[in-house]
Amino acid sequence: MNEKMKELGTRRSAIRELFEYGKKRKAEIGDENVYDFSIGNPSVPAPEIVRETLVNLLTKTDPVALHGYTSAQGDAKVRAAIADYLNKTYGAGVDSNLIYLTVGAAASLTVSLTALLNPGDEVVLLAPFFPEYRVFVERTGAKVVTVPADPETFQPDMDALQEAITERTRVLLVNSPNNPTGAVLSEQTVKKIAALLCEKQKNYGTAIWLIADEPYRELVWGDVKVPYLTNYYDRTIVCYSFSKSLSLPGERIGYLLVSPKSKDAADVYAAVCGAGRALGFVCAPSLFQYLIPACLGKTSDLSVYAGNRELLVQALTAYGFRVISPDGAFYLFVQSPEPDANAFCERAKGLELLLVPSDSFGCPGYVRISYCVSTDMIRRSLPAFEKLAASYGLPT
Amino acid sequence: MNEKMKELGTRRSAIRELFEYGKKRKAEIGDENVYDFSIGNPSVPAPEIVRETLVNLLTKTDPVALHGYTSAQGDAKVRAAIADYLNKTYGAGVDSNLIYLTVGAAASLTVSLTALLNPGDEVVLLAPFFPEYRVFVERTGAKVVTVPADPETFQPDMDALQEAITERTRVLLVNSPNNPTGAVLSEQTVKKIAALLCEKQKNYGTAIWLIADEPYRELVWGDVKVPYLTNYYDRTIVCYSFSKSLSLPGERIGYLLVSPKSKDAADVYAAVCGAGRALGFVCAPSLFQYLIPACLGKTSDLSVYAGNRELLVQALTAYGFRVISPDGAFYLFVQSPEPDANAFCERAKGLELLLVPSDSFGCPGYVRISYCVSTDMIRRSLPAFEKLAASYGLPT
Repeated sequence: MNEKMKELGTRRSAIRELFEYGKKRKAEIGDENVYDFSIGNPSVPAPEIVRETLVNLLTKTDPVALHGYTSAQGDAKVRAAIADYLNKTYGAGVDSNLIYLTVGAAASLTVSLTALLNPGDEVVLLAPFFPEYRVFVERTGAKVVTVPADPETFQPDMDALQEAITERTRVLLVNSPNNPTGAVLSEQTVKKIAALLCEKQKNYGTAIWLIADEPYRELVWGDVKVPYLTNYYDRTIVCYSFSKSLSLPGERIGYLLVSPKSKDAADVYAAVCGAGRALGFVCAPSLFQYLIPACLGKTSDLSVYAGNRELLVQALTAYGFRVISPDGAFYLFVQSPEPDANAFCERAKGLELLLVPSDSFGCPGYVRISYCVSTDMIRRSLPAFEKLAASYGLPT
Repeated sequence: MNEKMKELGTRRSAIRELFEYGKKRKAEIGDENVYDFSIGNPSVPAPEIVRETLVNLLTKTDPVALHGYTSAQGDAKVRAAIADYLNKTYGAGVDSNLIYLTVGAAASLTVSLTALLNPGDEVVLLAPFFPEYRVFVERTGAKVVTVPADPETFQPDMDALQEAITERTRVLLVNSPNNPTGAVLSEQTVKKIAALLCEKQKNYGTAIWLIADEPYRELVWGDVKVPYLTNYYDRTIVCYSFSKSLSLPGERIGYLLVSPKSKDAADVYAAVCGAGRALGFVCAPSLFQYLIPACLGKTSDLSVYAGNRELLVQALTAYGFRVISPDGAFYLFVQSPEPDANAFCERAKGLELLLVPSDSFGCPGYVRISYCVSTDMIRRSLPAFEKLAASYGLPT
């Protein structure tokens, strides 16, 4: 057997471990007594257009066509609709023939990484980062190199990034809005990153790909803009999922696209198709492919998350916690009152608060709080947070 | 970029290549003028219970629960329903905690192989075999070893199998009913295989896993029985998909199970969970997970395929072709009238007949004809088959 896979299956991600603990704990003491902030499972229902379109497809389409294989890269009309939407909305300059529908964002990433990487290659991650990135990269035989963020702004430390990129760097993987901090890469930062990558490519004579993992693109608060990366750097792959914007995380539907501005786009897209094939994806679920055209630009009622964010930021700050004020996504990054975030999370667990320690995100000393939960649960959880703060004697 | 992936994406499988050619050709000369026997895309609609259950789930279930993440291994109640069904129907002795829901059969296989294999390991395949097996095995760094079939019965050559299994053999992958021949492994053959594997394990002091790829389990004709392999050999993994039995190939829903009779079942199941995680599967599509309990033991109207088989076997035999008379699946394996099956397929293409040459199945000199198509198309295609036979001067 493969011992590495056994280890990955035995020692689950800290997030999944807590999610499973939460399920068990709820069965023991009742759903209403556990404050589960562990996982990014949207609490706001999918917009009505999702149900309407799915029921229409099921009742008015030939089931043989509806449930049959599509092309491996996804239905051509669906890909055309996505390209149209992105070009109109972001002036993204993308080509439907370079879009590949996937079984969600994780698949977008494993397919992209498998297409690009060989053993010994390096992938640069900006900490803090979604812990599964490390699993996805290392499975290909490539190596993770991490770059810390500025602890005040959570924008990347550009000097450290400059040093981290070597002639072995094949990919810089960015995630904006970010899981776990909610930070959005500003246009200024994106321009700096693009210039740096161009310079490094030229110096080393190599190809460096920028992979943008964007499941939280629509989840931004206030008037924050998320730059569309194909407009800034040619060798870009955008990975997208409808999990968060349409509240469909269990359905596994997303896409990736290779920017046509890169001169090796056709070859990389072929490698993407090859990787999808080798990993066993065949095609993205067909019913959910056909749902996409009706839902482009639509979202669940995201204002609920904005309200949750306000509520939590205000309360936790009042209790004395240091909270990173996020621009997007639906996570709060909170500094642990003691250096060991794991110990802090264990104490929180004693109050039935399920928070994820930040160690596996490559940035120890914090916890991630998913606020894509019911507002009611947040309200009911506040006394526990207050008690937790008091137990550390935090200044209120 | 990864050159191997680029190659896999550029030189598609012979089946997919022909499927894409068929789509283009139909657009050029009209659907009704192309006789597309290329792919195993069921032509019989899903049974009504599929539509009914899906619409019910969509209209009567909380969308947050319906579309939310499930546990990575799949919803516990769905897994329990599958275990119950298999234990009642086949006395399979399986355990719902060792079932893992997947995004279809290809995923069942890539996850199992990734769980079990390390570079340098060997996987034995019984030729002819589904060509993607080679892709799935080689991606893990393991090596394919092929064993020919008896050219009369298409049961495996047991002497050759005995020689093929070495101390590096980790997996024997079988597929019954078989794609492309339709052959079913008889109980007698299964017992011989099990005895051989036990002996080899003992001699070498190794663990050898039997992986049964069974998407065609329900597609058998006459009173043929498909032995359930957990009843014959302990170290068994069964890979299943609802693609063919319920006509849902585009939806990507299936499962794998590790037999609890194996003493290392828990470790291998952990490796399965780790492999699913590392390959980016997250969970099987949730709506289709929840569909499963209502559909266990149900199938599309498979009698249509039985009729298609009769029609084709009789006609092709009458035209002078040598047809392997299949027990199951929905493929016909037909001997090429010239040694080079590719040349034969090119000639067939000239008559708008799309047949898959057998070379990539590890058994040159034949073609695969998928008869999961409309009976009407088969009827209309017969003059072209007759012309094809006549062009070779076959004896009628």
